[in-house]
This record gives sequence, C-alpha cells and structure tokens, in this order.
Amino acid sequence: MPKAQERLPKRLYQARATRLRARLTQLQLELKDAPFKVLLIIAGPEGAGRGSLLNTLAEWLDPRGVETFSYHPPTDEEEKRPHQWRFWRSLPAKGRIGLYAGSWYTETLREEARSESALSHIAHEADRIRAFEKLLADGGTLILKVWLEISKEAQGRRLKTLREDPATAWRVTDEDWEHHRHYDRLAETAWMIRSKTDRPGARWTTVEAEDERARDLAVGQLLLTRFRQQQKKMARLARPRAPAEVTSLRASGLRRLHALPLDQELSEKDYHAAREKWLGRLNRAVRAAFAAERAVVFAFEGWDAAGKGGAIRRLTSAIDPRDYRVIPVAKPTDEEKHAHYLWRFWRDQPRAGRMAVFDRSWYGRVLVERLEGFCRDDEWRRAYEEINDFERQLTDHGAIVIKYWLHVSHAEQLRRFRERETTPHKQHKINHEDWRNRRKRAAYEVAVGDMLALTDRDNAPWHLVPANDKRYARLEVLRYASRRIEEVLEG
Amino acid sequence: MPKAQERLPKRLYQARATRLRARLTQLQLELKDAPFKVLLIIAGPEGAGRGSLLNTLAEWLDPRGVETFSYHPPTDEEEKRPHQWRFWRSLPAKGRIGLYAGSWYTETLREEARSESALSHIAHEADRIRAFEKLLADGGTLILKVWLEISKEAQGRRLKTLREDPATAWRVTDEDWEHHRHYDRLAETAWMIRSKTDRPGARWTTVEAEDERARDLAVGQLLLTRFRQQQKKMARLARPRAPAEVTSLRASGLRRLHALPLDQELSEKDYHAAREKWLGRLNRAVRAAFAAERAVVFAFEGWDAAGKGGAIRRLTSAIDPRDYRVIPVAKPTDEEKHAHYLWRFWRDQPRAGRMAVFDRSWYGRVLVERLEGFCRDDEWRRAYEEINDFERQLTDHGAIVIKYWLHVSHAEQLRRFRERETTPHKQHKINHEDWRNRRKRAAYEVAVGDMLALTDRDNAPWHLVPANDKRYARLEVLRYASRRIEEVLEG
Repeated sequence: MPKAQERLPKRLYQARATRLRARLTQLQLELKDAPFKVLLIIAGPEGAGRGSLLNTLAEWLDPRGVETFSYHPPTDEEEKRPHQWRFWRSLPAKGRIGLYAGSWYTETLREEARSESALSHIAHEADRIRAFEKLLADGGTLILKVWLEISKEAQGRRLKTLREDPATAWRVTDEDWEHHRHYDRLAETAWMIRSKTDRPGARWTTVEAEDERARDLAVGQLLLTRFRQQQKKMARLARPRAPAEVTSLRASGLRRLHALPLDQELSEKDYHAAREKWLGRLNRAVRAAFAAERAVVFAFEGWDAAGKGGAIRRLTSAIDPRDYRVIPVAKPTDEEKHAHYLWRFWRDQPRAGRMAVFDRSWYGRVLVERLEGFCRDDEWRRAYEEINDFERQLTDHGAIVIKYWLHVSHAEQLRRFRERETTPHKQHKINHEDWRNRRKRAAYEVAVGDMLALTDRDNAPWHLVPANDKRYARLEVLRYASRRIEEVLEG
Repeated sequence: MPKAQERLPKRLYQARATRLRARLTQLQLELKDAPFKVLLIIAGPEGAGRGSLLNTLAEWLDPRGVETFSYHPPTDEEEKRPHQWRFWRSLPAKGRIGLYAGSWYTETLREEARSESALSHIAHEADRIRAFEKLLADGGTLILKVWLEISKEAQGRRLKTLREDPATAWRVTDEDWEHHRHYDRLAETAWMIRSKTDRPGARWTTVEAEDERARDLAVGQLLLTRFRQQQKKMARLARPRAPAEVTSLRASGLRRLHALPLDQELSEKDYHAAREKWLGRLNRAVRAAFAAERAVVFAFEGWDAAGKGGAIRRLTSAIDPRDYRVIPVAKPTDEEKHAHYLWRFWRDQPRAGRMAVFDRSWYGRVLVERLEGFCRDDEWRRAYEEINDFERQLTDHGAIVIKYWLHVSHAEQLRRFRERETTPHKQHKINHEDWRNRRKRAAYEVAVGDMLALTDRDNAPWHLVPANDKRYARLEVLRYASRRIEEVLEG
C-alpha cells in the first residue's frame, strides 16, 4: 500500500484500471454461468469513500450483472418477521454481484461498545451474523467484506474540504461531524465486530482508503483474486450422486417411527361429532396466537398418499382465509434452484399474527434430496443443523412451529396408489416418481428416522400422526395443533 | 337452477361431481401450457358459502396449480405505493388458477351507497377496477367473477343454525348479524357495483347459492365452459410478427425528434464547475420530494450508446444510496415473460419517499417489441393508452415521473459503436443486436416519434436530451431533473 502522502499517479492508475476493467468484464461473463453468486460488502467510517468506491465499481462493471443493496430501518412487514428475513429476501439473483452499500452490519456498526449491555448485544448480533454468513458460504456464495481504513486526520481533512466548497457542502451532515469526534471509540467497536465475524468463507479485508485510486484498484483486484479462488474451490467439490446404500445416522428416530401404532379407527359419526368441536377449539387457539402477535407455521411431511392435502383442507377450514396461506412445495423453479435451499422458505414466512401451511417443506433436503442425489453428501449432512437454526430463528421471533409426519403402512399406501390410478379425477396425483419412491421405502424410512432424531427440538418438536385411517389422522392433526398452540401460549 | 326448497339429491351430486373433477383435472393439465392464466373471484353476502365453495374447489383441483388470495387492509409498504400495487404483485403465476376469497372488490363491497360522496367514491373505484381488469383481460387473462346469491331469509336461517350449535357458534360474528340487518341496502350497493364493472372480458355471473351442491357444481361448470371459450379465443389471435413497413401513427413526434439541435458542447472545465452546483440542487430537490412523501421515478430511454448508464451514475451520485434503486431493464426472465408486460414495472415501483431509476423502461413495448415483432399489432397499439394510464396511477399517488430520451446522431452512434469494439473493457457493451437495431434507424425513429407524440402528458412529459456531447447530456439530465422536481413540488 502506498503511504497517505504518495498518491498513485493518474497515468499509472489509468493503465491499471483499463487492464482491471477488461478482466472484470471477463469475470462477469464467467459468473453468469457459475454455480455461485458474489456478495461484496463495503463498510468503513465517513469520509473513507464508500460512495465513491461504489460509483467506480458501478462504472467498471456491466450494470446488468450487478445489484446494489442498502437498507433503511425495517418496515412494518419486515419488523413482523424474523430479523434475517429482509436480508434473505433481497439476495442478488444467480450470476450476479451484490454490492452492499449497507448490510447486516450497518446497524451494529453504528453502536458504541461502552456498556456491558451494549457489549452483550453486539456479541449476540455477531453470533447471528456468523450463522447467516456460514449458511451462505456453505451454500457456495462468495462473500467479500471490505473495511475501508482512514485515519482520524484524513477524515477531518476530507469533511473540511467538502464543507468549505459551497457546491459540495450538502454532502456533510451533522452526524458526520459527530462520528468524527468519536472516531476512536467507533473504530474500536468496529474492530471488535470485525474480529468476531472474521471467519472462513467470510473474511474481512482491510483496504487503506486515503488514496482513492489505490483504494479502488485494490478492491477491484480483490474481487478478481477471490473469484478465481472460489472457482477452483467449487470445481474441486464432488458431484452429488444418489447413495448406493443408506445407513442411519442415529437409530432412535427409526425406532420411534416403527413403534407408532397404525390400527386406530374412527367411525364417520364419531368423526363428525368431534370435528366441529376441535375446529372450534383450534379457531380459538389460533385467534389467541394472532392476538399475541405470534405467527403459526405448519410443516406437513409424510408418505406419498398419506393424506396431507385432505388434512390441510380440514385444518384451514377453521381459519379466516385472509389469515393463512397454503404453500405447496413442488420442485424448485429455475430461480429457486439457483438460490440457497432455505431461501424460498424464508421468503414465504408469514408475518406475526398470520399463518402459513407448508405442504411439504424444507425437510425435502434431508429426504428426497438426500436419497435421490440432488445434493452433495456434505450438504444434506449439514442441513440438520441449518434447519434447527432456521426454526430457532422463527421461534425466537415468536412463531409457533408445528411439524407433522403422516405415517401410513406400506400396504395401505399401495391400496391408495391403486385407487388413484383407477379414479379419473385422482390420476393426476400419481406418477412414476411416486412408484420409484415407494420401491425405496426402506431407505426413506432411514432418512425419516434420522430427520426425526436430529431435528426434534423442544422449540419445534415432531408429531407423528397414524394415518392409515383418514378420519383419525385428520382429527389427530386438529387435536395436536390446538393443544400445541395452547401449550406454547401458556408458556 | 333448482328452487331453494329442492336440494340436488346427494347421489346425483356425487355422480356429477366425479365427472366434473375428471374434466377439471384435464383443464389444469392444459392450463399449465396455456398462454393465459385464470382468476376466479368469489363474492357474495355472509352465509352464501364463499368459504365452503372455496373448500370444495380446493378439493376438486390439484393444489399445485392453485393459488388462493385474500387481502387484509394494506400494510405500510402497500399504503406507500399506488392502490393497485398490492394486486399486481400478487397475481397467480403462469399456468395457475388464482382463487380470490377476497379481491379488489372486497373493500368497495363493504360500503353502502347512501350518500352522494359514497356514490361518487364507488363510481371512482369502479373506474379503477374496470381499467385494471381491462388491462388483464386484454393481456389474455381469463377473469371469472362469481356473485353468490342468497335471500335474506336463507341468510338468517344459516346464521341461526350455525349459532345454535355450540360447536359452530364461533363462525358467526356480530358483524355478520349487522350485515344481515342491512341485507337490502348492501344488496343494492353490490348490484350497482356489479353492473358498473360488468364488462367484456370481465363478466359477473350470478350463482344461486341456497343449495350448496348445485352452487358448487355450477361454479365448477362455469370454470370449464369459460376456459374452453378462452382457449378458442386465444387460438384465433394472430401470431406476432415484425412489420414489413413501419408507418407513423402521428407525425408530430417525429418532427419534434428531428428538430432537436445536436451541436451543443461543454468543455471539461465548464462541466466540472456546473456539475457540483447542479448535484447540490438536485440533492435538495430530491430531499424536498422525499420530505413531501413523494416517490421519484426516472425512465431513461435513448439510442444504444447514447450514454444512459453514465448519465444515471452522475445523477445517482447526488442521492443517498439507501434511497434509490437503479433497475436495468434487460430481456424479461421466464417468469416475467409469462406475466403482463407492465407487471415487472409495477413490482419495482418505489414507495413514497424513495426513488427508482429505470435504465430502459416500459416503453420497450412500443419500441423494440413493436419493431421486432415480439408482440401482436393490437398489443403495441393498445400499449400507449395502457402506459398513460399506468403513469397516471403513479402520479395520482404523488410520484414525480421524469422521462428522458437521449438523442445521438447516426454518425456519433457509429463512432461510439466502433470505440466499444476496440476497447477491451467496453466490448461487452456491443453485440449484433445493437448493429441490427442500428440498421433499422429509420423505423426506430418512427416508433420513437409515435411514443413522444402519444405518451407526452402534462403529468409525465418527455424531455429530449441532445447527447452527442456526453458532458452536455449529463448536465442537462441533472438540470432538468432538478427543475422538474421543483416545479412539481411547487404545484
């Protein structure tokens, strides 16, 4: 790095910038088809030139491949969802570079680490940020975090120069001067936050920012270097493939599944009598949850033809249609395929006081994706913890998470498949994938067992529903939902 | 329709429902690849069974092809955008049926047409709804609007039956009884709204709702019949093709374009002196607009290589990055291609107090889409009025809309194309499409002229920018933006 006094000569800068631009253009072409996206976070004190650096980058890069992000304080739609929701919903699209003028660091970096409670708050924020960035980095996203370094003296000079010219005085605010006075304290806090969030896959790079030209070249060069490294890293990763043999990670879940009795029955008469009663109770429970500003999130999993759709329709018939959404989880669209597997589930989270019913869910990662080789071995193995963390974010924000596994015997499933094939209006519900999955029942049971064992948490437990008898299953879904909501509300 | 007293026998109902379901399944398969989507709006008084009808439809239809919509009062993100924004952003995806439990009618239907001001408000709402539905219907969407009819007596009986059973009493609210008492007045208002919004392409169908079975069959049958009609109608439409010859719709625009002098120049020194001054003035104007809760919307159009990107970067350098977004308008993605052409521009509208800069815009419809045959003749001809209406919605909601045409001569464009081809970091900016468009300059001039003549409105006028000299153009963009914002704010 050149010293502050020696500015990089203009001619030299221009020669280097021209070469850099050509290489960045090439980078953007390759990024379009790359299996990852790039996040570039620019942070630093006032006067370090975040804005001017972003302008240079905008000029160097093809704007069609760039998205710029910055954040205002949360809107009410954002406030009513878990903290990370607004960052999840605004990640750049596949093949693009996200330039972050502001980021998940912005609010934290404004704080001063002066009190015990401020310190503990910052530590908590840093935990959250680490978990979020780890998730993205593990998912293949290249995260670059640049800290622009500038001395207190240089900051003062810059602010003064801007203020003294009537044409540029509007750029300097009172807050800028306030921050200038507290330069040392803010720098210390910023250093602390950076060291707490400097992790593999999400490293901070400090760039000397007094010489604007050197600063811009350094950041452009960093982008190039790290992009090439990421390409190599991604190329080394094994390709996903379906496992030859499926062995259990933890046998307790499989035992729990096999221990479930499936011989319950309910007559039509008993069912109708009990249904209205439980619908009423569920309605009251859900309204109480809404009144307490709680979201209610259902995840329905179960064997094909276990009756998820029917159970969901009975469940939702107790709820005002304006208050819930049913989200059928089909194969991901093109856009979703290129995003993190949790992205679409973040996107569809209900706000506080509303309900979402996922017909199949984020658990596809450790079921069909694990068994059919749609993701790598390390990816589905990591998913249990990622999912626990995801659900923890929801429940920390007050959501009530209710997860069902609808269990039918192999024989009952066969009976239903055959019925679907011979009933005209049910034929669309059965295809060769269902038969393929059925043949793999033993492997699926292992995966279901691992899921039950590894993601059954007090804040988001699994409920197993015996579903050989449809009426019994539907009622059991209503009963458990009512009781679980009441239980959580009673705290 | 059977009379209220004679219910459709269960056996007959089941036989018909089975046939209907098989045909609906077939419909959904065909809809997946159809060039249109379906909106089914269900409205009617309490007790007419909207909820139970929606449940039946949810059971009959494959849930993967259905989205259910209903609306709460607007959130703050919605309040801060034009009224239609929330309906635009939640239209069903391609190949799907949108079931509307609530809709753009819900709020209006709650009103009573008792006073002059209520009447005039309803008339205004009906205008807005007609325009919105016309836009969708013209774009190929099949809109079905069902009004469930039920007598006051039958309504009273239903509410009473529900209330008397402790298991279902929770379904009946005080508001339901209130509406029951005012049955006649509400029915009259509803009739008025229906007749004001009963238009080709968006007809109301009244369905007798006292017999639930007959009601559900009638709606299912309506869906089938109207779907088949729509298929035939769409098949009859001519395929889009590029015009053999392009003739002007109105010559005044072309004259205006040709009359623009292009020989202005600005020295580097004069430019730098003036730039900071105008950036400051623009910054103040934009902040004043934000303080007045106005959105600011820029549309940049112009010849290829006219310097839109550079002008936008100078413009935005005056604005806090958290307050604006630049939206580069590339070819539509798959998802966008199947939506109405205005959909993505609705989606990206800034909220009040924010700014959006569109680098190319909704005018693509009457420029490249017209000339390259990407849409039908009737589609681009209709677009001028649709666009005027769209911009009117924005300005009615307080947005300041600023539209530029950046004009360069044919010779200057050639010079810039050649420069791009020989400069490594500019090569990505030029491709065969640019050369193709260049060869069609005369045709494009006609289209630009028509655009200028037909969409130059007081609320959203065009500003022509001489752009042979980049510095002059950039400054002119700043000057006009500042003055226009000041002018609008002064009212």
